[in-house]
Amino acid sequence: MADKKLVEAITSMEEDFAQWYTDVVKKAELIDYTTVKGCMVIRPAGYAIWELIQKDLDRRFKETGVSNVYLPMFIPESLLNKEKDHVEGFAPEVAWVTHGGLEPLQERLCVRPTSETLFCDYYKNVVQSYRDLPQVCNQWCSVVRWEKETRPFLRSREFLWQEGHTAHATAEEAEERTLQMLDVYSSFLEETLAIPAIKGRKTDKEKFAGAVATYTVEALMHDGKALQSGTSHNFGDGFARAFGVQFTDKDNTLKYVHQTSWGMTTRLIGAVIMVHGDDSGLKLPPAVAPVQVLIVPIQQKKEGVLDKAYEMRDRILRASENSVRVKVDDTDKSPGWKFSEQEMRGIPMRIEIGPKDMEAGKCVIVRRDTGEKIEVADTELEAKVQELLVTIQKDMLEAARVHRDSHTYSATDMDEFRKIFAEKAGFVKAMWCGEQECEDKIKEELSVTSRCMPFEQEQISDRCVCCGKPAKHMVYWGRAY
Amino acid sequence: MADKKLVEAITSMEEDFAQWYTDVVKKAELIDYTTVKGCMVIRPAGYAIWELIQKDLDRRFKETGVSNVYLPMFIPESLLNKEKDHVEGFAPEVAWVTHGGLEPLQERLCVRPTSETLFCDYYKNVVQSYRDLPQVCNQWCSVVRWEKETRPFLRSREFLWQEGHTAHATAEEAEERTLQMLDVYSSFLEETLAIPAIKGRKTDKEKFAGAVATYTVEALMHDGKALQSGTSHNFGDGFARAFGVQFTDKDNTLKYVHQTSWGMTTRLIGAVIMVHGDDSGLKLPPAVAPVQVLIVPIQQKKEGVLDKAYEMRDRILRASENSVRVKVDDTDKSPGWKFSEQEMRGIPMRIEIGPKDMEAGKCVIVRRDTGEKIEVADTELEAKVQELLVTIQKDMLEAARVHRDSHTYSATDMDEFRKIFAEKAGFVKAMWCGEQECEDKIKEELSVTSRCMPFEQEQISDRCVCCGKPAKHMVYWGRAY
Repeated sequence: MADKKLVEAITSMEEDFAQWYTDVVKKAELIDYTTVKGCMVIRPAGYAIWELIQKDLDRRFKETGVSNVYLPMFIPESLLNKEKDHVEGFAPEVAWVTHGGLEPLQERLCVRPTSETLFCDYYKNVVQSYRDLPQVCNQWCSVVRWEKETRPFLRSREFLWQEGHTAHATAEEAEERTLQMLDVYSSFLEETLAIPAIKGRKTDKEKFAGAVATYTVEALMHDGKALQSGTSHNFGDGFARAFGVQFTDKDNTLKYVHQTSWGMTTRLIGAVIMVHGDDSGLKLPPAVAPVQVLIVPIQQKKEGVLDKAYEMRDRILRASENSVRVKVDDTDKSPGWKFSEQEMRGIPMRIEIGPKDMEAGKCVIVRRDTGEKIEVADTELEAKVQELLVTIQKDMLEAARVHRDSHTYSATDMDEFRKIFAEKAGFVKAMWCGEQECEDKIKEELSVTSRCMPFEQEQISDRCVCCGKPAKHMVYWGRAY
Repeated sequence: MADKKLVEAITSMEEDFAQWYTDVVKKAELIDYTTVKGCMVIRPAGYAIWELIQKDLDRRFKETGVSNVYLPMFIPESLLNKEKDHVEGFAPEVAWVTHGGLEPLQERLCVRPTSETLFCDYYKNVVQSYRDLPQVCNQWCSVVRWEKETRPFLRSREFLWQEGHTAHATAEEAEERTLQMLDVYSSFLEETLAIPAIKGRKTDKEKFAGAVATYTVEALMHDGKALQSGTSHNFGDGFARAFGVQFTDKDNTLKYVHQTSWGMTTRLIGAVIMVHGDDSGLKLPPAVAPVQVLIVPIQQKKEGVLDKAYEMRDRILRASENSVRVKVDDTDKSPGWKFSEQEMRGIPMRIEIGPKDMEAGKCVIVRRDTGEKIEVADTELEAKVQELLVTIQKDMLEAARVHRDSHTYSATDMDEFRKIFAEKAGFVKAMWCGEQECEDKIKEELSVTSRCMPFEQEQISDRCVCCGKPAKHMVYWGRAY
């Protein structure tokens, strides 16, 4: 049984979801607050999750031909100003460097909020001919947006992310890359983070500053709020025209490149917490669990118990060619305390082994996701552990899908729409006429935004949920982080 | 034979080493200049080297128990000011953020030039008892120092690095960690970058701002100038006292922690270029070569040639379990052009395969490091490639060691000392009395600095090379980047 003291220290998620979230990020030692307002320390347990996310995403990127690069963190004001929509979107929330060393700068520099402008500047230098295309680059870095309200992982003044930026010879190729990366994101969310994603296109109101089209993967958190989990933008040749990124094509004429960008951030860690967690703390999908299996010796001072635990660890390592991340908790804490910590930290599986188990030639495996206890014969340990990790990963995705689907509603008129958002929390599928006025009205009245126009359209009705005019798109609506 | 046009485009290293260096970083497509003064783009070919460096170093760190974290990039001015020596060292060269969004900040923030102050702030929060020690953290990030003169990789206003920061219960443990990380650095330099390193301690004049002791690994470049390649600092409890980082020890008394920090940067890529390169361009040690083997088909339009090249690639991949990074250059460039590119980019080995070779059941391997051409029977290809990669790695270290040793001199008085620095370039071993006055004098007259007091001391004479007073230490002196 988990130790009461530790568990009681966190707020129940039904009681106060926001406080529960804050408790988990602190108690699971993912985050520490700092004296730098709005910025966080990502602690070892949190950063190790990010490293697993990076490794997995980076592999997926490289399989599609992406190269990593590093561009400066500063953008001269004149460069930021070149694309009108873009600067309007970002200028109000950037941090400005005005002094270098003891002297004022001639031109102030903003700390990158995103790097479209710098990539344009770079591609302008290195792209001359169609032979230099496509350019398919990505960088892992931190960016800064001067937010007023901040929350660990979800919204902070500085956050870590990857930003991919590509340049292509044709509009078709750019659109193809935009959608390809959206697919990479949705596969990653489902396969690695066990989070089912809705793929779709943002409305013009919600699209990225400077984009022709923004595509998104939207996920539903446990509390029924939506989280935009990754976006992929097609810029057409708008940035290229503003920055003069041209190439000589095969037909010997000068053309503008077509560009895309796409990004995922450390807010994914927030998504993992809010999709999978429970009142005992974090629940990590095995694919991003820095420790996947914790062996907890019972009565570890009794002769042979610790040795047995180490032997089990070594067998699991050997059988999996070191691919299973397994540890023995041999500290002098009580087993109950160790159980609580393992649950709080979201380690997917614990193995309990004590003198009685040893005598019976077995051990007990406890799944973090379901709480299920499984007696396993010692001889089957290695196979069972590997099998269960696969099962847990699959079952967590399935559980998240069931939760999302059971919190997805539909509405055909505003009364129904209002009623759902008053009584329930989740996605609402409803038709939309395509006019921003209706989005504005819904947002103002209900703090609900259009999350996306999903690729999988359904005909909920033929009228806009808001104005009753003929409908153009089915939209997922929700309250969002 | 390499294509003349491409080769002639770079300056000879004997003629103008600085220009040769700049030519190589541009022509090998490692770097691009930007409109952000003093900042660079690290291009795919350059960043891929950095990724291999990161992966290797990170593995070595983790083997010693290091965890990665991420701390904010901003430091409030009041936090930077807490440790007197530290702020004096860094304040003149930091970039200041004074505005967030549209409003002026109440307190200005500097962009981190290094993160000792932030780690102190963090450790102060998370360390309470001896049970919380040691803290052994590292972060991979970028830092900013507002340099006036910049050079690609060697000195830029923003650069990438890792900075490790640890806190310990005792002075002994801190010193042990400081030296342990210096050993990690020197093993990494020798085993991975094929650069022989001199390990030693910095003089007080040259040590890090706020450190009790700074240890360094010093390397000698092809032009005889020194490059400080990594440093490891022991801070004693100085920072802990300034920031109030205390813990309750086993004996129930409150004590200050003892801290260390250690870092390596993207200047290592500069070191690789300047230690190994030649007039044909870059020479990468196999361990950090993004492409290790390039297969160049000769008369590739002849039937079967390209297929043979792919087959060879696949066999090399299979035999090495995908560990050898091998590519076929199947572009429509001429073989000569491909050779030149492979040489410029420093790919350690190329394999030439044409119809005649196929008929004879062989191929030709050309080593980038020595230029040696080796006929290899087709049946022995896989084994030979793997064997040669090991040999090249070893021989490159040996060649660098021979160069360094043949450019290391010793002097017993100032006449001799001056003469060497007037006529030659390299390290000079000479005795020193321990007084900063002599270091100042030597620096002012000859632009020569003490690189380190090596762990392997020799008794060159018993008098200081500068003032003739009794000697305390043997010092490596040099002109440095």
